[in-house]
Amino acid sequence: MTEATFLPAERAKLQSNTNPSPRSDPMKLRHVIESQQFTLPLLMELFTRSRGMERIVARGGSLDYQNRIMAALFYQPSTRTRLSFEAAMQRLGGRVLSTEHARAFSSEVEGEQVEDSIRIIGSYSDVIVIRHNETGGAHRAARVSPVPVINAGDGDGGQHPTQALLDLYTIYRERSLDGLSVAFIGELDKGRTVRSLAYLLAKFERIKIFFVSPPELQMKPDILEYLDEHGVRYELESDIDRVIREVDVVYQTRIRPERMKDTQNLKRYAIDSAVLQRMKPDAMILHPLPRTVELDKTVDTDPRALYFRQAVNGLYVRMALLTMVLEK
Amino acid sequence: MTEATFLPAERAKLQSNTNPSPRSDPMKLRHVIESQQFTLPLLMELFTRSRGMERIVARGGSLDYQNRIMAALFYQPSTRTRLSFEAAMQRLGGRVLSTEHARAFSSEVEGEQVEDSIRIIGSYSDVIVIRHNETGGAHRAARVSPVPVINAGDGDGGQHPTQALLDLYTIYRERSLDGLSVAFIGELDKGRTVRSLAYLLAKFERIKIFFVSPPELQMKPDILEYLDEHGVRYELESDIDRVIREVDVVYQTRIRPERMKDTQNLKRYAIDSAVLQRMKPDAMILHPLPRTVELDKTVDTDPRALYFRQAVNGLYVRMALLTMVLEK
Amino acid sequence: MTEATFLPAERAKLQSNTNPSPRSDPMKLRHVIESQQFTLPLLMELFTRSRGMERIVARGGSLDYQNRIMAALFYQPSTRTRLSFEAAMQRLGGRVLSTEHARAFSSEVEGEQVEDSIRIIGSYSDVIVIRHNETGGAHRAARVSPVPVINAGDGDGGQHPTQALLDLYTIYRERSLDGLSVAFIGELDKGRTVRSLAYLLAKFERIKIFFVSPPELQMKPDILEYLDEHGVRYELESDIDRVIREVDVVYQTRIRPERMKDTQNLKRYAIDSAVLQRMKPDAMILHPLPRTVELDKTVDTDPRALYFRQAVNGLYVRMALLTMVLEK
Repeated sequence: MTEATFLPAERAKLQSNTNPSPRSDPMKLRHVIESQQFTLPLLMELFTRSRGMERIVARGGSLDYQNRIMAALFYQPSTRTRLSFEAAMQRLGGRVLSTEHARAFSSEVEGEQVEDSIRIIGSYSDVIVIRHNETGGAHRAARVSPVPVINAGDGDGGQHPTQALLDLYTIYRERSLDGLSVAFIGELDKGRTVRSLAYLLAKFERIKIFFVSPPELQMKPDILEYLDEHGVRYELESDIDRVIREVDVVYQTRIRPERMKDTQNLKRYAIDSAVLQRMKPDAMILHPLPRTVELDKTVDTDPRALYFRQAVNGLYVRMALLTMVLEK
Repeated sequence: MTEATFLPAERAKLQSNTNPSPRSDPMKLRHVIESQQFTLPLLMELFTRSRGMERIVARGGSLDYQNRIMAALFYQPSTRTRLSFEAAMQRLGGRVLSTEHARAFSSEVEGEQVEDSIRIIGSYSDVIVIRHNETGGAHRAARVSPVPVINAGDGDGGQHPTQALLDLYTIYRERSLDGLSVAFIGELDKGRTVRSLAYLLAKFERIKIFFVSPPELQMKPDILEYLDEHGVRYELESDIDRVIREVDVVYQTRIRPERMKDTQNLKRYAIDSAVLQRMKPDAMILHPLPRTVELDKTVDTDPRALYFRQAVNGLYVRMALLTMVLEK
Repeated sequence: MTEATFLPAERAKLQSNTNPSPRSDPMKLRHVIESQQFTLPLLMELFTRSRGMERIVARGGSLDYQNRIMAALFYQPSTRTRLSFEAAMQRLGGRVLSTEHARAFSSEVEGEQVEDSIRIIGSYSDVIVIRHNETGGAHRAARVSPVPVINAGDGDGGQHPTQALLDLYTIYRERSLDGLSVAFIGELDKGRTVRSLAYLLAKFERIKIFFVSPPELQMKPDILEYLDEHGVRYELESDIDRVIREVDVVYQTRIRPERMKDTQNLKRYAIDSAVLQRMKPDAMILHPLPRTVELDKTVDTDPRALYFRQAVNGLYVRMALLTMVLEK
């Protein structure tokens, strides 16, 4: 969902706190479609709940969701994201309906509209988690759904807000978010998770962002304009070395070699033990995973490597989100 | 399953009330394979239970099925039907085993017999829901299964009895079934759901059916003979206009353009706002979904459009069916 | 996993009884990777628990596993094995995460390493059941997993230890294992289940094994060497007739015709009613299923046919294994 296609009035409706309905609790979420929805107080509420979920899981407990059903409706396979949401719902004590082939929704009709599917699945379930292959797919779903919709990634140019929320939570668990400097590295023009996280970072004070990528894969203007409007400092870079010594967070993403002009440069955007030595001793290395060559396995044992911690934090953040949208 | 391949003695065995066993409660179901099984008293029992399920779901409750397992064994993908059954079992408090790729049952053996799979899955589960690609597949399954089998659609020329039951329940919730006039529109020769519903309607008094389709796609003789035998009035039509003003139910189904002799005629079998104006003010529009061009989205907001109501009724009817076959 | 690739020190770690940790109960299992792990006392513990599971299932009960999650991670589809494990976990009262397309783990990255997937899934779940397409895949998973790993089959030349355990349990339920004579028939060089069962049989006294197959598909030397080392008598045969009258167990497996030099011989390795007549009256016929022509359906009604009993025993043995690895 690009900024342009999502009208302000519609964005407001995603949260009932901007909706003059009886359900006007400002901490209330209806749908989770894009990062920009999340106000600072809502983020803090989410993070407080996520901490609570850590404690519940640690003591092997669960919550009282045994009569609630989450439908995972994936139009593209993404086993890890799907299982993370399914585990979150089950750790709450809830139940799951699941498909990773929603495009083959029927053996009969090609090109069925997502709206019809959502209306129907929404009559079976209490919340729908959707991964859609088109940008804006989750928003189309939310417009007609009788139950809350959570965006689990929509299109190459869309968002993946729960990934961004778990990324932010992972940093938040380590240090204050104000004053943070972050390097996003990789294939940024199609970086759904980077886009979603940039929107969230703009809510904090004195943030500095470095977008590090080959010029042909740099971050798109819509995000840069958003950062300008919100007074966030950023720089476009093509050389890791110029930023690696000063950043607090290295947010690494993959680069598909076939999208680079010069694949000889691929190694210049990778993190390995040599790059590690130049990083701050208290830096954090994040990666949404899966990885290929851009993140060497020798990094795994470094205490600054937080990417497996991101995965487990994803469980807590998704549990917390589910409790928020399922609240009556 | 065509009439011809299903012997009367075998049909009798589908219900334990015709089976001289100790389990001879006349309201008892063993397998659900075809519409014809359902006597009027059994239909009324099912509908009474379905109403009860509506109330249980409305108050967020569930039943005592936490130790019962339903296996959904789909040889063809049909996400909507599969999730409807899975939601039904979970709303009862039960558990689900699921596959939408039963044909890829093994990475080793091509063309495995459905009988072996059923014997094995039946030793893991308490009820099997099967969607099979061949007409008669569900009946083959029931013949060897150690647990109840429910047909979730078998072959192009087979049946889809639970769809017909939810269709009938949707009409029943609105008005008396006796004296009903129904137009079936679309590609009727391969209309699994239309076939199953026609069998059910034949159980009621003073029914009038119009089969409306291009001549090359008209209803097959076996159903027409069945209606003749049961004294049900019907007419074959190729023009919607001749029937639309007088029918109580418009049961719309898709037409695949490639199956029509003249695709210019496709629009003549579609329901849109112009057709709506000619319908009775208290008519009902049903469609098994998914839809393509034969049912315009402008119809969705008309109070006579009941096709999304059909989906939620499917949940209640399937919950009720599961309680009936799982009763000890 | 061949003998060669699995170092003794690593094998020892699979069980905590050889691991000088505080969790040093000799009946304790950490991972289930290969048959050789199982000592005689551990086998007897497993079989005693399996009997208990039979009783729990028979009375429709379940155990106290409602907050435990099993992840079924299948890199190859194997619906039957997957559903058997999922049913086992659900009969214990537990919960299941499931994928039969783990290779399409992400829509983004080809060739993701199993290690990363396991680390992540292991942070969502309490036990991982893995089917991997490469020999040694389950062992690679166990090396990095934060939770117990159970091998549900790895590669053509690997193992399928839970299948072998349920095979052995099926025989054990009928008679004493010491002094048993067993004919393995079929495509033995790629027989994952035969390999795993041969390792287990070697733990008992006075076992005699006949490997019956076309010479080009005979059992590989690594298993024969293992039997030599453990003093187990065996013979290589190419003719069923020479052994069928004297064996206690006929363990039949499929033969893919395209792997035989002379497909005219295919029928010579099949079990049909003629072969039945030559077998001992108290013999047992086992088959891991699925079957093709090598096991005629006329055999199904013979009381010596135990292959559907194997399937239900698989449920009990997998329930028992899950309780053992999930014990705290």
